[in-house]
Amino acid sequence: MVADYIVGRLKARDVQTDLIDVADYPLAGTGSASATHSLDHYRRIVEDADGFVIVAPEYNHGYPGELKLLLDSDHAGYRHKPAGLVGVSAGRIGGARMIGQLQVVSLALGLIPVSPTVLVSEVASAFDRAGEMLHESQREVVERMLEEVEALADRLEPGRT
Amino acid sequence: MVADYIVGRLKARDVQTDLIDVADYPLAGTGSASATHSLDHYRRIVEDADGFVIVAPEYNHGYPGELKLLLDSDHAGYRHKPAGLVGVSAGRIGGARMIGQLQVVSLALGLIPVSPTVLVSEVASAFDRAGEMLHESQREVVERMLEEVEALADRLEPGRT
Amino acid sequence: MVADYIVGRLKARDVQTDLIDVADYPLAGTGSASATHSLDHYRRIVEDADGFVIVAPEYNHGYPGELKLLLDSDHAGYRHKPAGLVGVSAGRIGGARMIGQLQVVSLALGLIPVSPTVLVSEVASAFDRAGEMLHESQREVVERMLEEVEALADRLEPGRT
Amino acid sequence: MVADYIVGRLKARDVQTDLIDVADYPLAGTGSASATHSLDHYRRIVEDADGFVIVAPEYNHGYPGELKLLLDSDHAGYRHKPAGLVGVSAGRIGGARMIGQLQVVSLALGLIPVSPTVLVSEVASAFDRAGEMLHESQREVVERMLEEVEALADRLEPGRT
Repeated sequence: MVADYIVGRLKARDVQTDLIDVADYPLAGTGSASATHSLDHYRRIVEDADGFVIVAPEYNHGYPGELKLLLDSDHAGYRHKPAGLVGVSAGRIGGARMIGQLQVVSLALGLIPVSPTVLVSEVASAFDRAGEMLHESQREVVERMLEEVEALADRLEPGRT
Repeated sequence: MVADYIVGRLKARDVQTDLIDVADYPLAGTGSASATHSLDHYRRIVEDADGFVIVAPEYNHGYPGELKLLLDSDHAGYRHKPAGLVGVSAGRIGGARMIGQLQVVSLALGLIPVSPTVLVSEVASAFDRAGEMLHESQREVVERMLEEVEALADRLEPGRT
Repeated sequence: MVADYIVGRLKARDVQTDLIDVADYPLAGTGSASATHSLDHYRRIVEDADGFVIVAPEYNHGYPGELKLLLDSDHAGYRHKPAGLVGVSAGRIGGARMIGQLQVVSLALGLIPVSPTVLVSEVASAFDRAGEMLHESQREVVERMLEEVEALADRLEPGRT
Repeated sequence: MVADYIVGRLKARDVQTDLIDVADYPLAGTGSASATHSLDHYRRIVEDADGFVIVAPEYNHGYPGELKLLLDSDHAGYRHKPAGLVGVSAGRIGGARMIGQLQVVSLALGLIPVSPTVLVSEVASAFDRAGEMLHESQREVVERMLEEVEALADRLEPGRT
């Protein structure tokens, strides 16, 4: 729901976007029966992208293992590209602790995590039936994050080689 | 190599130990062909244990996704049990950044991460052919960590319910 | 306000408590004119204590410099003593990111940070005029944190030397 | 010693540099007798700068309180400016854990922490008497960090307002 909302907002901003779902990729070195895409497919999307938005739930104050496995499966394609980080939680904190860990990992990958980050608390009641974010203040943070990803992608792109 | 060394030291201390290898468990929700044990098997070992030593490499300054998936697959069994943390890296830093993130996750799980932590740098040259740790100072840190796990397990055990 | 509330709850539990205010100590190596106590005074309180509760605001997603200076001014007195961590913020997140960093520092000091941690969001509207916490769920988390500090202090005390 | 080395390297690269020493500023709200500069002086340097290099020791796996106090004393001047992070320690780990926390704080301040970070381990034996870094591999990491700060300052500068 959160990822779909972000994709919708990016479309409204005329930004071409691929939605990458960890569930579609073979992870943990397993020949996963449910995987529909290869890791090469993931690496091609990463290489072609000018920027990223990562949406992730917080489990036990850290990032999900599936997300880390997918992020770790590439290393060259992230360099000097901005990443908006969106934390999601059922509780009141919106994944803030996970975001702190994800910022450190993002920097290690060569990504440039943007400010502000988005924290979606109590996700079960954060959207209406049409998939619209209910809190205006939160919608505004999303737009500022997306603006920042776009602005940094524009400025950083010429220098990539 | 690191995990085997730790298991050997625990045997030398007369501590009954199960070696849990993430590769033996079905992770990421996949019916992994290579998995030889069920997650119920993991949860039973966790429940029966009085303490833990977690050995993990650092990838991109974070913990491996496989480890996080396995840790997240239980929640009741960790409470009030000590955990020694051992970071491993090919480089000079020994996984220090990953250990910081793993301490936060361990606390969220209810574990009590012990001090000192063990950092095995340049792991390729850290052991001799017999599997013995080469640096005496590092062997001493391992023993102090194991003493701490044992001591805290003893003191915390009576209060668990 | 938060610290006073915690002290009140500890008194209600018959736990003898000293309130340490960073503003009373000379920090940053300065002969601060406003300091009323010496760092030796701090170290004596730390040495005598069986456990701690640390109440701190989050600034820029980290802990306050004053708190770190005071914590760093001792090293022997913290060992094997439980610490309840209470984050305070004007915003919605309650200092969660700061708490993650404080957990790592606490472990380095030899403290045992307890679970749960307490996160006081929107602190300006969290208390009534009598200094009582308004949200029952938050009051319950405080009590569980204090119970845990007491329980761990009891269990860990015999082994300290 | 580390900061002087960095300043020397920046001069060699024709980058105009101010050396900011936390000891020169009144911190912790104290009218410090030893302070020779005002916090306004600090804020003016920050505002005028196109980029930063932060050199800091690790204490108890965190950043020094003095550094945090100084960083927290401004908020508008950091936005969209790159920051090279240099950790220093007497031991083998070079401040890696502190750097992780400083990355999160830097992002909260609006800074863009660059990759690679520099970790100076065993600082007492890291320099010769002329103040030259002994290890060539470390000198190379310093240059790559400085190149990155310069490159990002160039690319990000036009977009600042």
